[in-house]
Amino acid sequence: MNSQLIFSREEYKYRVKRTQQMMDHRGIETLLVMDPGGMNYLSGYDGWSFYVHQGVIISLNDEMPYWFGRKQDSNGARITTWLDEDHIRGYEDYYVQSRYTHTMRFVAGLFKFLGFEKKSLGLEMDGYWFNARMYQELRENLLSARLLDASNLVNWVKIIKSDVEIEYIRQASKICEKVMQTAVDNIEVGVMEKNVASMVTAAQIYGTDEYGGSSPAIFPIMPTAERTSTAHMTFHPDRRYQKNDVVILELAGSRYNYNAPLSRTMYLGEPPSDLRKVSDVVIKGLEDTLGFIKPGITAEAVEERWRSNLIGTGIEKPSRVGYSFGLNYVPDWGEHTVSLRPGDKTLLEPGMTIHFMPGIWLDTYGFECSEPILVTEKGCEKLIDFPEKLFIK
Amino acid sequence: MNSQLIFSREEYKYRVKRTQQMMDHRGIETLLVMDPGGMNYLSGYDGWSFYVHQGVIISLNDEMPYWFGRKQDSNGARITTWLDEDHIRGYEDYYVQSRYTHTMRFVAGLFKFLGFEKKSLGLEMDGYWFNARMYQELRENLLSARLLDASNLVNWVKIIKSDVEIEYIRQASKICEKVMQTAVDNIEVGVMEKNVASMVTAAQIYGTDEYGGSSPAIFPIMPTAERTSTAHMTFHPDRRYQKNDVVILELAGSRYNYNAPLSRTMYLGEPPSDLRKVSDVVIKGLEDTLGFIKPGITAEAVEERWRSNLIGTGIEKPSRVGYSFGLNYVPDWGEHTVSLRPGDKTLLEPGMTIHFMPGIWLDTYGFECSEPILVTEKGCEKLIDFPEKLFIK
Repeated sequence: MNSQLIFSREEYKYRVKRTQQMMDHRGIETLLVMDPGGMNYLSGYDGWSFYVHQGVIISLNDEMPYWFGRKQDSNGARITTWLDEDHIRGYEDYYVQSRYTHTMRFVAGLFKFLGFEKKSLGLEMDGYWFNARMYQELRENLLSARLLDASNLVNWVKIIKSDVEIEYIRQASKICEKVMQTAVDNIEVGVMEKNVASMVTAAQIYGTDEYGGSSPAIFPIMPTAERTSTAHMTFHPDRRYQKNDVVILELAGSRYNYNAPLSRTMYLGEPPSDLRKVSDVVIKGLEDTLGFIKPGITAEAVEERWRSNLIGTGIEKPSRVGYSFGLNYVPDWGEHTVSLRPGDKTLLEPGMTIHFMPGIWLDTYGFECSEPILVTEKGCEKLIDFPEKLFIK
Repeated sequence: MNSQLIFSREEYKYRVKRTQQMMDHRGIETLLVMDPGGMNYLSGYDGWSFYVHQGVIISLNDEMPYWFGRKQDSNGARITTWLDEDHIRGYEDYYVQSRYTHTMRFVAGLFKFLGFEKKSLGLEMDGYWFNARMYQELRENLLSARLLDASNLVNWVKIIKSDVEIEYIRQASKICEKVMQTAVDNIEVGVMEKNVASMVTAAQIYGTDEYGGSSPAIFPIMPTAERTSTAHMTFHPDRRYQKNDVVILELAGSRYNYNAPLSRTMYLGEPPSDLRKVSDVVIKGLEDTLGFIKPGITAEAVEERWRSNLIGTGIEKPSRVGYSFGLNYVPDWGEHTVSLRPGDKTLLEPGMTIHFMPGIWLDTYGFECSEPILVTEKGCEKLIDFPEKLFIK
């Protein structure tokens, strides 16, 4: 079938080649990829089936990944991937959440069948989707394999986006502009928070008139009042916006699971002077830092430049100020590769997409104003066109 | 602060006691709970911060859990949990996705500080949120601890719902009725799939006029045509509903992260006779099986009763036909405890909530009609009131 591919087969093959290059350099002969973003990147597979165990296997000697998953999801692989029938391997339903057997026994059997049981095997040890029991089962059932840590290996491959990927991220960015505008237009004193959250999620899925959205990897973060003093709270389902609310909005558009995130802050009433001050400092520092970004500088230098803008202002920002983003499913649109913080020696390169995210959380409220950017040949480009200011109503 | 608790402190304490009872019976002195549903259940903690490492720790000797997480999320713990200040432990930002240290070193340090380093320690080895690297780090940094598998321990505690929990699930069920009605009312030949998906997500968050919804643990599953031949595909962002489409709808309402799921199937046009036949067999079998459910029978007996309805029909259903559901975050509203399938010896008890889910996936399309039920003293009760039929337009 393979009827619903969103990239050319050549692009998928090139991604596999780049993955194999990194495997080779690390001495990994076989790679088990269970992160659904990585699975999608290499095979095209798309579906909300990652709540059961599934993955793709990359061998140095095969240009095509193997997909494995629950048999009832195999047709999803036939529809959404570029893989041939003999590279799609469904397991029986009795493996699902069993107390007596384990999916990794099926996977170990597949490795043996494919002749991989004595190879070095790369595992996403520190990922969301490879748990401790999976590791134990593979260890016990592949006694001759050398198990190596390959955490984020595919994320380091996909950190450089192709032209078509950038086009999808641009589409996600257009969706994000509409999503953020929906929030800014509808938040008002007296309105239920759930009303706005409901409109925001609808705008994420509707997308634009030209193209539909997909579900972003993080649910709309849109806390109010004291809930803005912490980083990751959503709306309150039973509360109305009140006078003197601070409202933080960290929202995304998503196209084919390519995310584009953006943060802004609103104040309902006359903002206190310290919030205005934080806003001014952050926006000035944001603009200064974006002007500094270009290929060849390190991630830590970007953070250092940002921090230099805070000197003498009394404001501190003790966490990282940005990270790589792109093709991802829940629970995170971040790629866990480059972080803008002290110690990160990654050199920025054209084709990287980075969420520059200088959030400030004080004791009683927070302020966020961020920009997703594309590193270009000569500098960087904002992917989203949305006013940088403290929104006041 | 603790200003936004949705259960009484007594209810949280009772949950901890029931967890300690199960720990004691398994010889576990300290339990590390990283599943966000389990964290919420025991502490009240609610936020989209589970993309970084966080958890609660239960000791046999303390009625109050310890929360740990990223320092910038600590205020979220102060706002949403019943915990005292000295039971909230934030870690510094340099632990986040670091290549040089690991959050589990912080956790190991906390265990030592609390005097737990020689205790037996229960870990969610086969959960979504406890990865292989976490296990290795704890193993290396807690050399005197005895590490035990406590996968799903909290899920087995929360399988019996309290009166207040059942009330929230009933509210989620009312939301789900509205969500499903929104889908059924708006799906029509010529309408963009994304339009309906957008309205469905909006209805999930808006909830009812009396109470707001929350984000269900699974994104709306609403495939069409060949995409219904597999179990977990969502809408197509660029496609319109077409004549002779089969449309599967697996949708949920959610209230305070208590999910209530429901499945139905639509046909746009004159349905083929084999789809009508499948529909008749499934709905008849569903009703027969629900009439059979009562406390004291086993999970496997329910599946056997269901399967007896298929004899002579030519229809096979080789996967489990139901599972426990409740308080859960992405990626799954299922509790990974009781499964309605051969071999599951769990005795049904009053207060269990089970999604009876006899989905049939044939080569070219599927059919689903499910019911979330509450096991009562004498039988079971449907939580949702929605017609059981093949919806035809």
